[in-house]
Amino acid sequence: MARIALDAMGGDFAPKATVAGALMALADLDPAHSIQLVGRTAAIQQQLDALLAGELSAMAPHRPRCSIVEAPDVVEMTDKPSAVVRSRPNSSMAVGLRLQADGESDAFVSAGSTGAQMAASMVLLRLHAGLKRPAIVTLFPSARRPVAVLDSGANVDCSPDELVQFARLGSVYAECVLGRDEPAIGLLSIGEEAEKGNAVTKETHVLLAKSGLNFIGNVEGRDLPAGGTDQQAVDVVVCDGFVGNVLLKFYEAIAPFMIDTLRNAGVPDQMLGQGLKHLDYSEHGGAPLLGVRGVSIIAHGKSSPRAIKNALKVAAQAVDSGMNDVIGQRLSATEPVA
Amino acid sequence: MARIALDAMGGDFAPKATVAGALMALADLDPAHSIQLVGRTAAIQQQLDALLAGELSAMAPHRPRCSIVEAPDVVEMTDKPSAVVRSRPNSSMAVGLRLQADGESDAFVSAGSTGAQMAASMVLLRLHAGLKRPAIVTLFPSARRPVAVLDSGANVDCSPDELVQFARLGSVYAECVLGRDEPAIGLLSIGEEAEKGNAVTKETHVLLAKSGLNFIGNVEGRDLPAGGTDQQAVDVVVCDGFVGNVLLKFYEAIAPFMIDTLRNAGVPDQMLGQGLKHLDYSEHGGAPLLGVRGVSIIAHGKSSPRAIKNALKVAAQAVDSGMNDVIGQRLSATEPVA
Repeated sequence: MARIALDAMGGDFAPKATVAGALMALADLDPAHSIQLVGRTAAIQQQLDALLAGELSAMAPHRPRCSIVEAPDVVEMTDKPSAVVRSRPNSSMAVGLRLQADGESDAFVSAGSTGAQMAASMVLLRLHAGLKRPAIVTLFPSARRPVAVLDSGANVDCSPDELVQFARLGSVYAECVLGRDEPAIGLLSIGEEAEKGNAVTKETHVLLAKSGLNFIGNVEGRDLPAGGTDQQAVDVVVCDGFVGNVLLKFYEAIAPFMIDTLRNAGVPDQMLGQGLKHLDYSEHGGAPLLGVRGVSIIAHGKSSPRAIKNALKVAAQAVDSGMNDVIGQRLSATEPVA
Repeated sequence: MARIALDAMGGDFAPKATVAGALMALADLDPAHSIQLVGRTAAIQQQLDALLAGELSAMAPHRPRCSIVEAPDVVEMTDKPSAVVRSRPNSSMAVGLRLQADGESDAFVSAGSTGAQMAASMVLLRLHAGLKRPAIVTLFPSARRPVAVLDSGANVDCSPDELVQFARLGSVYAECVLGRDEPAIGLLSIGEEAEKGNAVTKETHVLLAKSGLNFIGNVEGRDLPAGGTDQQAVDVVVCDGFVGNVLLKFYEAIAPFMIDTLRNAGVPDQMLGQGLKHLDYSEHGGAPLLGVRGVSIIAHGKSSPRAIKNALKVAAQAVDSGMNDVIGQRLSATEPVA
């Protein structure tokens, strides 16, 4: 049973896309799960009424599993991320995360400011012992199964120890949320050999080799679309947040670019949509912020109702699998507690 | 007038692809240009005879502008790159580069070992004053014009000063070889704002802003497929060789992955080939090794005759434009000579 708080005001298409996504998620989720819509009650109620009277009338039976939690304020993209808990204590972001800190909710999902969500999650949920910052994990579509890449932008200059922590966090995520057994961990570098890479990756390679994780060695840029090397699949790819963020934004932009290119060459839209469906980010839902004591899922700012629905499902899976507890156990078993 | 030495033995499909590419290039190049095929004379002669008697018989009039320079040895992929000049002095790689050092050639092109070509170019051609290492520049296809990205793998841990040097090298390359006026230089980072990025890029941003180059600021991963930001096009993108190499290999693998995906969805091969033609690396030819005193062009190991032809044309353009001299002038005008 999971109570999932959704920032109803976060994202470019809120509150319509968020409320619609919540109703769609309830239809898919286990009936024991409920959703807390956090934000301006009047605006949320208006969307609920309109959607249930119209395009989502089939979702009416699920309405009772959906509550509204009033939050009169909203985080703006111009707000300083590190200050939002203090500057906007009554924002949907702060109220939604505080529900979890107070034991009244099990997970939080937002399509609002990523920086604000990260900072507020660190303040209100706090980090597991031994961690300095959380990491963002995103799923990259591939020719095999999607690959979990972390960090995707929370940490720019990383030490080898931090990259090993990302590997531990990613391994638990792949196991608990993606359902992978003994997830295969790769270290992003510029050659297969252990001695290829920059100073940090070379040292990280040595540490990962004796980490007890299922470390398959270095992977290269070409192994991401392939979902692994020629020899074996990879579940988790570790890199610093600078490289991860550049790659993520590059990948997000490639699919639309190629679609435009092919459309100009006369390929019919229907074939393109069908063929590239699994490259669509809304298929994969939200990106968990790993390392906080709780569940905080980052959805894309441009999230459609479908993307919100999938982010809510990721949150439910994280709660149901006990991901947060498993992370705590794994970290305390391997890291010296500060 | 350019005399271009081609490593006839380098690359996965040599010597057939290299000799064929040379004949095709001669048909396209200015009649004053000539090609020196460097390698095992018998093997090269055999390919020339077969191609001119067969599929490339139309190229026969160009045969006189193509000479053979004997080199009995070949660099193997297992050779230690830094040692090839000493361990294989009679290899096609070493002989071809020495021609240029001795004033008997104006440029060198190889599809052989990139590491060996880089090391041998540094030893035999030497670097311009003030440089510690050369940089590899590659062209990324984009929705606008191709974008020159450097470094693409020669330097993994780079200082801000080195990244500024890459910007200077890339600017001359874009001007001389790509014909761009006042090339727009972008710094690859994870946000548009000057204060976004890791420690090195933040410092580099400050240096580039006062470099006298046409610096347009930070660009993000998504700006690479777009060929610039929403506001303006970018000609050159600067990053360290770790990030550049990861991105290059990622990009090279994306197109085949998407083509497979779309083929499986029923898009006809002809439409795919037509639509994605300009994503094909063989269209763009070789990657210059910038910073050496001379012209050394790196072709992809899997180069087709068409790719070799285009790499030879890049070499001719570099010679004709006086790129190497311009680089020397620009560096000595801005850098303290050691």
